[in-house]
Amino acid sequence: MKRSIGVKEILFPNPMCVVGAYDEAGKANMAAIAWAGIVASVPPSVGISVRPSRYTHVCIKRRGAFTISVPSLHYLKEADYFGLASGRDADKLAVTGLTAVRGAFVDAPYIEEFPYVLECAVTHSIEIGSHTLFVGEVKDARADAELFDEQGHVDWAAGQIVCYDMSANSYYSVGENVGKAFSVGAGFLQKGGA
Amino acid sequence: MKRSIGVKEILFPNPMCVVGAYDEAGKANMAAIAWAGIVASVPPSVGISVRPSRYTHVCIKRRGAFTISVPSLHYLKEADYFGLASGRDADKLAVTGLTAVRGAFVDAPYIEEFPYVLECAVTHSIEIGSHTLFVGEVKDARADAELFDEQGHVDWAAGQIVCYDMSANSYYSVGENVGKAFSVGAGFLQKGGA
Repeated sequence: MKRSIGVKEILFPNPMCVVGAYDEAGKANMAAIAWAGIVASVPPSVGISVRPSRYTHVCIKRRGAFTISVPSLHYLKEADYFGLASGRDADKLAVTGLTAVRGAFVDAPYIEEFPYVLECAVTHSIEIGSHTLFVGEVKDARADAELFDEQGHVDWAAGQIVCYDMSANSYYSVGENVGKAFSVGAGFLQKGGA
Repeated sequence: MKRSIGVKEILFPNPMCVVGAYDEAGKANMAAIAWAGIVASVPPSVGISVRPSRYTHVCIKRRGAFTISVPSLHYLKEADYFGLASGRDADKLAVTGLTAVRGAFVDAPYIEEFPYVLECAVTHSIEIGSHTLFVGEVKDARADAELFDEQGHVDWAAGQIVCYDMSANSYYSVGENVGKAFSVGAGFLQKGGA
């Protein structure tokens, strides 16, 4: 038996992302955003949704670039704070002591201490109700060297990457590996599943 | 020290979503998609990216509606299979024995056995390189009644909802609750963080 929670934009899991952009004065601005995800593979593209009222919005509009820095559990407090204060009022990097580094491929800063970084050049800016969906073409993705497993994949559990739950507004750690994608369901193919 | 993985559309975590839509003949089609996320709160909107070559694409285009059914670990094999076969060639619901139910609010079917469902009406259809980003306004979100905690939030860990990792193509369970969002970082506000 299902119970409705009504007309709500809730899905799980969500990534915990800190978006970086430069403001007009060239100051690095960092903001935690609730909504980010992959939107295309050719070109490799991610989408982030930002309210026009946020300081990050004008920064991205002006420079046409942003980064996504994904925190480890160790930096969860800092990342959470980046969603609580505005770069208009606070020097969030100074307060947290974290380091902004200019992107190697785009005109936007990322957080050196966070284990995973995407550098993105804006290709689309789409108004969807309350938010602007900025689509960014990924110019580089990189992770701390010690997070790669033997196959060269990023081990998110080892990196203590967290999931954001917008239902209870909580963060969760990554649990166990429970199966291989495009593989655990292959048994159905033999059952006449084409 | 960071190591580049190049120009790749990788972010973690991603939800595991099965998208439901009716085909021309009115047959329920279910497909696992890699990319889904929230894109706006007013109106509550989700985005899913679908390649034009996929059977789901024409179904959504025609009816202007889709659902997202989120599997529990118990149904991971079935959900994975929905990404391996095409509705053009296989009756995926018959093969898996799962039940398609007509949406209560939109002209699209969802999977009764999966613990979380969104019903969505298409508001935008945006071409982004290889994919079409369909934006859907959420008409209803609901979860199995036993998944709600005492505060009325969905307990994803109790529901054994999985995370999809597109780096290693693996599924992960949800781990521990590691903190409250918009809260664990509040200490920085007292440090002059505005």
